Amino acid sequence: MNFSSKLIEEAVQAFSRLPGIGKKSALRLVLFLIRQPVEVTEQYTEALLRLRKGIKECAKCHNLSDEEWCNICANPRRDTGVICVVESIKDVLAIESTDQYRGLYHVLGGIISPIEGVGPNDLHIDSLMHRVQTEDIQEVIMAISPTIEGETTIYYLSKKLKPSGVKISAIARGVSFGGELEYADELTLGRSIVARIPYQVKSED
Amino acid sequence: MNFSSKLIEEAVQAFSRLPGIGKKSALRLVLFLIRQPVEVTEQYTEALLRLRKGIKECAKCHNLSDEEWCNICANPRRDTGVICVVESIKDVLAIESTDQYRGLYHVLGGIISPIEGVGPNDLHIDSLMHRVQTEDIQEVIMAISPTIEGETTIYYLSKKLKPSGVKISAIARGVSFGGELEYADELTLGRSIVARIPYQVKSED
Repeated sequence: MNFSSKLIEEAVQAFSRLPGIGKKSALRLVLFLIRQPVEVTEQYTEALLRLRKGIKECAKCHNLSDEEWCNICANPRRDTGVICVVESIKDVLAIESTDQYRGLYHVLGGIISPIEGVGPNDLHIDSLMHRVQTEDIQEVIMAISPTIEGETTIYYLSKKLKPSGVKISAIARGVSFGGELEYADELTLGRSIVARIPYQVKSED
Repeated sequence: MNFSSKLIEEAVQAFSRLPGIGKKSALRLVLFLIRQPVEVTEQYTEALLRLRKGIKECAKCHNLSDEEWCNICANPRRDTGVICVVESIKDVLAIESTDQYRGLYHVLGGIISPIEGVGPNDLHIDSLMHRVQTEDIQEVIMAISPTIEGETTIYYLSKKLKPSGVKISAIARGVSFGGELEYADELTLGRSIVARIPYQVKSED
């Protein structure tokens, strides 16, 4: 595109460096900001700078955090006896939005992937071991994607954790709620039959 | 979503205020910026602030500009005898990328739309009249969308421009190049038959 303004060109380039934003979307965003009062751009850029300069990694669980400890580790009402091990902060957000888990987390920062050159030493595994040894942890839940790399990571962690005697569990796999059987992939469907659970008839009380 | 960080929450909100960016895309952009060095966020926000604080309206054609006159008005190699009247700066960009037009522009800043409360006085029509009267203009091209509001605007401008004796033209309408006849809308197809042009057999030289 042929911009009549250097300022617009630079701003369009700045936007299109972000993932998923092409030149046309970038121009739309630029024209939107120009039409808004200066304060809108100022508030927007200030929020991003505050974020980028202020964000820390939680000293305990490696979640992103505003303080030394993240909101979850610092919350006295969480169950401090359970750690849910996840790959990234996105998984923490996903599990938190279910409102079904009240324990703590441990963010590995990736999974073991020889192809991408990620080994155990690149992940926050030592700090997980340290937590299991020093904190009063009863259970470690593996909430890691069921890919080959994910299963490798679960296996590696389980072997390392076994001597500590802590209970190790993995999140349940199966056909999703509301999902139709014919659209479930074969592996999931097959495993969900092998790992079937007793059906409980609800008593009428 | 349940963010463990106030900073992330604010940045996600800042992104999702932009048009076409939802909460999930906003989070992806935020996590992208966190993974990049601080300089990436700084360069990005600086480009936006420079744009928003520095951008001006061209004193001549109302195009967006870095200086008092935009690059097009200030370019001595443009044909200063022709003005192309458009609705918005997006149309300037679209026509400029065709590389087929070497004249000047005049950005109206909208079109006459009684439903949206936009009257002739809300548009840059007086400055267009002033240009036609004071500059040496031979032709005014109406490059305005062929909607009801667009046609109204063209009609209004033509009536106002007529006394000045300037040549008035409108961009050609018809079936688009490469477009298949059966998919063209009836109005366009009908008009393209009525406004048919003589076919010129190319001489073999």
